[in-house]
Amino acid sequence: MTPDNIAAIATPPGTGGIAVIRVSGPDAIEIVQSAWKGKRLSEVKSHTVTLGKYVATDGSILDEALASVFLGPNSFTGENVVEISAHGSTWIQREILSDLIRRGARTAGPGEFTQRAFLNGRIDLAQAEGVADLIAASSRAAHHLAMSQTRGGFSKELDSLRDKLIEFSSLLELELDFSEEDVEFAERQRLHNLATAVLNKIERLAKSYSSGSAIKEGFPVVIAGVPNAGKSSLLNLLTGDDKAIVTDIPGTTRDIIEDTVEIDGILFRFFDTAGLRESADKVESIGIGKARSKMREARIVIWIIDPCSPLSNQIAELRTFQTQNSGITIIPLLNKSDICLEHLTLQPLTAIKSGDETDKTISQIQSGATVNSGMPDADIKNVCNDAIRFSTKTKEGLDILKRRLSGIATEGFNPQEELIVTNARHYESLIHGAESLRRAISSIESGISADFIAQDIRESLHHLGTITGAITTSDLLQSIFTRFCIGK
Amino acid sequence: MTPDNIAAIATPPGTGGIAVIRVSGPDAIEIVQSAWKGKRLSEVKSHTVTLGKYVATDGSILDEALASVFLGPNSFTGENVVEISAHGSTWIQREILSDLIRRGARTAGPGEFTQRAFLNGRIDLAQAEGVADLIAASSRAAHHLAMSQTRGGFSKELDSLRDKLIEFSSLLELELDFSEEDVEFAERQRLHNLATAVLNKIERLAKSYSSGSAIKEGFPVVIAGVPNAGKSSLLNLLTGDDKAIVTDIPGTTRDIIEDTVEIDGILFRFFDTAGLRESADKVESIGIGKARSKMREARIVIWIIDPCSPLSNQIAELRTFQTQNSGITIIPLLNKSDICLEHLTLQPLTAIKSGDETDKTISQIQSGATVNSGMPDADIKNVCNDAIRFSTKTKEGLDILKRRLSGIATEGFNPQEELIVTNARHYESLIHGAESLRRAISSIESGISADFIAQDIRESLHHLGTITGAITTSDLLQSIFTRFCIGK
Repeated sequence: MTPDNIAAIATPPGTGGIAVIRVSGPDAIEIVQSAWKGKRLSEVKSHTVTLGKYVATDGSILDEALASVFLGPNSFTGENVVEISAHGSTWIQREILSDLIRRGARTAGPGEFTQRAFLNGRIDLAQAEGVADLIAASSRAAHHLAMSQTRGGFSKELDSLRDKLIEFSSLLELELDFSEEDVEFAERQRLHNLATAVLNKIERLAKSYSSGSAIKEGFPVVIAGVPNAGKSSLLNLLTGDDKAIVTDIPGTTRDIIEDTVEIDGILFRFFDTAGLRESADKVESIGIGKARSKMREARIVIWIIDPCSPLSNQIAELRTFQTQNSGITIIPLLNKSDICLEHLTLQPLTAIKSGDETDKTISQIQSGATVNSGMPDADIKNVCNDAIRFSTKTKEGLDILKRRLSGIATEGFNPQEELIVTNARHYESLIHGAESLRRAISSIESGISADFIAQDIRESLHHLGTITGAITTSDLLQSIFTRFCIGK
Repeated sequence: MTPDNIAAIATPPGTGGIAVIRVSGPDAIEIVQSAWKGKRLSEVKSHTVTLGKYVATDGSILDEALASVFLGPNSFTGENVVEISAHGSTWIQREILSDLIRRGARTAGPGEFTQRAFLNGRIDLAQAEGVADLIAASSRAAHHLAMSQTRGGFSKELDSLRDKLIEFSSLLELELDFSEEDVEFAERQRLHNLATAVLNKIERLAKSYSSGSAIKEGFPVVIAGVPNAGKSSLLNLLTGDDKAIVTDIPGTTRDIIEDTVEIDGILFRFFDTAGLRESADKVESIGIGKARSKMREARIVIWIIDPCSPLSNQIAELRTFQTQNSGITIIPLLNKSDICLEHLTLQPLTAIKSGDETDKTISQIQSGATVNSGMPDADIKNVCNDAIRFSTKTKEGLDILKRRLSGIATEGFNPQEELIVTNARHYESLIHGAESLRRAISSIESGISADFIAQDIRESLHHLGTITGAITTSDLLQSIFTRFCIGK
């Protein structure tokens, strides 16, 4: 099928100084030329810019504009491309696009320019998906990952893994050809080592998805604690905004309030939640339920401890949550350092005695008062000692909190060096590829015949191949490119 | 003063496929080059596009981008210009701009690129203002006027008027040099003819402002009529939207609801208003007051006559308004043609008899019933005969109404040919220029000495000169260019 000619507004929607309308296809230059008054575009060199007038089919001048000509295959799509840089009025943008359609171009679908770049072998599928990520990236780290993906680092890694599997596979196929002679060309131990090495690499990549997707979408951080502990004040402090309503009334926040902040180049997605308590208020109770389930989805929970409120319940709840959700990192904050902790130096544990009173605040603990409620005093002490001394008023502890957050987010990997998977589709393919490979390894171990092993290796190759588009279907392409913006 | 280097995002704000960051100034190329990995930008030809990598000062790759290089004076600003075409993520746009600032560029103010084009003699002031109008234009007609202004048609006309006045002036100055000898080099009658011809032209231009500003901003059209006549339905029909709330309850609309529609390339600004009646409801009464004052500001009033309601009051109010506002064109619509007028053929006037009843609807008039209330029946008949038969339900009459609207808007001038003033500043300068010229003419007529005449001519020249920027002040420039968008 000969490709047709596509056109779209490539710059963001709306009014601006200039806007770019992009045309790609075998007749891109002729189509724009038919509307062009100025130097003949069919005679200019590739990668040059020509000033001229865009004249509509009705003879009226739509704009004085610049046309950049890119001759295929040395263009983004690999086809002939003209980019018309016009005045950025929405009216002009719309009229030029309509006029191009009248002259034989077709409106491009989302991501169709990038899709053509893929189909013409300019980039592979993972790189194409990197382009979409690059445009969506809203933090330094997400941008870095997308950029590395568009530049083909991830693809290169995958290709080398596939090359190894293909080598493996060809040894097996050879064996199958001579199967009646019962020879083993592929030494089993070598095969086993090779497959295990590839599997390790695949598993490491798959494992990076958890961090990768968090970097791309933002690390989910829930702010939790008893009512009136200062959760909404903390959200507002972190975002530098007045998004969450703050009052002295416990139970002010009921809906989950969400905002994103970039810290050290990493995007965090903060959720301010209803204060944890037993409430008779129906709306508040629903809010508390939502808060608890949001906490379980988080990667990090900032647990605000209110030293002016009884402590043992707060610590008990924290510990229970910690036990039930071992994958979630908890950052305890001891808030209101400007009020309740003004002259506080935590005493050694021995200074605190157990007693029969129900509960005590920190100041009571300090003054040697006793605490109870089945909670070991030592643990309250431990948590409070570990907690960041904080004040949403004086901003004490804010820098420490930010460093802690970015430390946790980058823990265990270096975004500057390692390859990280950010795409759910890639993650799934890696998981499937690893499964097949695991089957192959176990077949080798049980001495099962080569044709079964070969079958599993082929499956693994298939899954890895779909990531870069070495193996592809039109459904797959459609599902990938419809998520792009139009004009890219 | 040596100009510095300015940079700005030139494309509309937000995320898109691509975004363009523009840099202009003596060191534009060196500044971008310092961040550029790829072919050396200082060695490429003007008007060429180079693919490369934009590397931030911290060494990270911000984007793989295209750089278009334009060498002064053959660039938009007349200076060296680089346009960086990057991926359209807001993050990349922001980072590249910040990085350019770190490398010595300064954020451009609104319209600063165009201002430099003016200061470097690439365009005059009226053309520069045309650029802003071009970007803001939201209809074919407004676009046409702005385009003609950017292309210098208006400036050429003004220059020719000024040339004539300068010729006039130099004749007078010569006379002043020899004033002691009491000679008259400038023949008074010729001077008079010349000045009158120029004055006529200026007045014609000034007069076009009324149409010009309406084309630029949209023709104000008020939809008026009794409650429940169908005004909001008409607004919704014209705009193809559900903007105005429509119910059977008279008095539904109280605030003025505004929307714009392009008809035959001309922008109309429709105002749906409260129905005209005496109302006890306080909010409705305020709304009716607003409606009446909006009608007096309109260029066109679509007056909906409700044939199911008593007619003579409706016609009487229409006639009163018409008498008091002779400059406003009224389009009467006879609405509800699908209900009340289903089998209506208006009878000749003689079929209607006067009587003592207070008022009658059309159907009563049709059935030969009598009408009264001091309103001549003939007039009701006249208005109803002139009115467009209309139905907001069946859309009967909609095409006729649209043709009528665009006919009125273009009446008396041909936007394709004549020069039309669209800018309030130009209009004021023309008015002042005409005043001075009128004084000069009257001085000639009264035989007043040449130095007074010369003074008035100089004043007139000054006013006309401010339009194209032949005469300018920094205040004037500031007030003009701050209205531009940034990046243009």
